[in-house]
Amino acid sequence: MENHISTFWKGGNSFESENTSGHHLIIDADQPESGATYYRPKSLMLSALAGCSGLDVAFLIKKMKLEVDEFSIEIKAHLTDEHPKFYDKVHVIYHFHGENLNEAKLNRCVELSVDRYCGVAEMFRRFSELTNEIVFHKS
Amino acid sequence: MENHISTFWKGGNSFESENTSGHHLIIDADQPESGATYYRPKSLMLSALAGCSGLDVAFLIKKMKLEVDEFSIEIKAHLTDEHPKFYDKVHVIYHFHGENLNEAKLNRCVELSVDRYCGVAEMFRRFSELTNEIVFHKS
Repeated sequence: MENHISTFWKGGNSFESENTSGHHLIIDADQPESGATYYRPKSLMLSALAGCSGLDVAFLIKKMKLEVDEFSIEIKAHLTDEHPKFYDKVHVIYHFHGENLNEAKLNRCVELSVDRYCGVAEMFRRFSELTNEIVFHKS
Repeated sequence: MENHISTFWKGGNSFESENTSGHHLIIDADQPESGATYYRPKSLMLSALAGCSGLDVAFLIKKMKLEVDEFSIEIKAHLTDEHPKFYDKVHVIYHFHGENLNEAKLNRCVELSVDRYCGVAEMFRRFSELTNEIVFHKS
């Protein structure tokens, strides 16, 4: 399967990039005066990682019929000092909130995503030291 | 330097992820009924690559005072068949449009970005066969 996207220069430091969903996003190195919603390119990689693994975990939560009130993913990513600057250490923290959290099964959901299903995690492993932790919040 | 982002589950197959610009984006595996603007996680990686390298090239076009009417970046990325699916072959096509294109200097801009400045290209090289070509369109 092939993904094919185009990204157009809008002048200055602004680009408009399409996504395979068909929706476009603005990437900008400045703060546009127009008040447009825009993103920085490198941290889009982190959103891709959280989204990819999060979707796996959400699928598994549903499949295993687990009770989870809230779920979020926090990422702390270290950039190298020298050009080309890239993320060499990436730590992903999975936060689960709920009264009846099945910790063993939620651990298993994260493990299945990270080790088996999440293609973005696989890509990150090739360029960074990718670690994770799971935090349970009894709400 | 560290980038720190959080991504929140909105229920179903939908996540809201923040970017280091402060703006949020919706990542979704479905097509939300609300008509919201949403993105697929993997192809956000391709927008990150185009945006990162595009910003370098736009900076160099300005610095070298080159004449370019339009500039876009097309990416064709092949996904592996087996899980975890990742981009193993990525081809980036830089399109420059204009009447007075300085081809030698534009080639140099792309080369400087790909080889020296673009951190996202550096990350892609670690997991994919990253190739590029440059197309000049005399408008």
